[in-house]
Amino acid sequence: MTANDLPLTKEEILDAAEQVLRRFGPDKTSVVDIAKVLKVSHGTLYRHFASKVSIREAVTERWLRLSITVPLDTLAEQTGGSAAAHLRLWMETLIGLKRTFSVEDAEMFKMYAAVTLSEVEIIEAHVNRLITQMGRLIDSGMLTGEFKEGNSEQLARALFLATSPFHHPAHAKAWISDSHTADFDAVWQLLMSGLLKK
Amino acid sequence: MTANDLPLTKEEILDAAEQVLRRFGPDKTSVVDIAKVLKVSHGTLYRHFASKVSIREAVTERWLRLSITVPLDTLAEQTGGSAAAHLRLWMETLIGLKRTFSVEDAEMFKMYAAVTLSEVEIIEAHVNRLITQMGRLIDSGMLTGEFKEGNSEQLARALFLATSPFHHPAHAKAWISDSHTADFDAVWQLLMSGLLKK
Repeated sequence: MTANDLPLTKEEILDAAEQVLRRFGPDKTSVVDIAKVLKVSHGTLYRHFASKVSIREAVTERWLRLSITVPLDTLAEQTGGSAAAHLRLWMETLIGLKRTFSVEDAEMFKMYAAVTLSEVEIIEAHVNRLITQMGRLIDSGMLTGEFKEGNSEQLARALFLATSPFHHPAHAKAWISDSHTADFDAVWQLLMSGLLKK
Repeated sequence: MTANDLPLTKEEILDAAEQVLRRFGPDKTSVVDIAKVLKVSHGTLYRHFASKVSIREAVTERWLRLSITVPLDTLAEQTGGSAAAHLRLWMETLIGLKRTFSVEDAEMFKMYAAVTLSEVEIIEAHVNRLITQMGRLIDSGMLTGEFKEGNSEQLARALFLATSPFHHPAHAKAWISDSHTADFDAVWQLLMSGLLKK
């Protein structure tokens, strides 16, 4: 086993791992494959990550952050105008991003869907970040009196759960159905009529 | 290959198939195993069902009907008193049945979860039956003025979709989480405040 002495950053490892994971898929990717791309021994990788599973988790975590959480964060900062409109734009963007990735970034989406079923912690942290973003928009709607008073974080969590069929990866197969848009609209209207003051 | 001349009913085949599927699981069960229990050739079974997959579908369909749809049907007939209370009892019973089966009838539940991912038609019919039951309860609430006027079938579908995290088998792992009951309560309250007149 030869060791390469150049200092490797975590980001460099994740870049290589993501590249290999996209090419071979999560099942066929080994730590040795990733080490090869980086021209280091797999021993060097184990100094940064405990296992193949933890590399996969870290890649998924970064992918979720860069492709979902960060783009949505800007939409969650919106003030002025209707909070209900901001909230709907935020939710439709989340749904649109998920649907796009399920088709156009299928390999990463598949890995994310698998991680959702197994590694609870990363996904819980991801979901909590999204719920915090929605909570901010709900807070601003409560401040202006557009929304009824209430526990904004609890309401955000309820909205997130109630819209699961439209963004949880386990439901991805239904996203191409004809009734998908009408279904979302009906669910959203019902939820909003519970949230809006009048 | 010997053929047994006694006339076999579909129910008898489904009884035997369910028994074998429970014992060996869907992946390891073959048509020959089911034929053995019935003491007939597998050729005889193929006169009733086109494939192993169609036997599995028929067993799942019957199981869903007998263990979920039929028990809930009585609750959907309730009139008098609060429609919101009837609706909540109906939904909590659905959730309770699913959760119980996921633990105590794990083999059948696993098969149902697998069928949910692949055989869209059976599941769609099952879901539509449940939505019709909810629609009846919503209708009765609209009649008494407890609920706002609206399209009861569309509302029933929205309620069903919005409560997916609590009854869709893809979410079964979350059903044992500590926050499960509080989460359902928050989602339900939000949905009901959209449905109730005041």
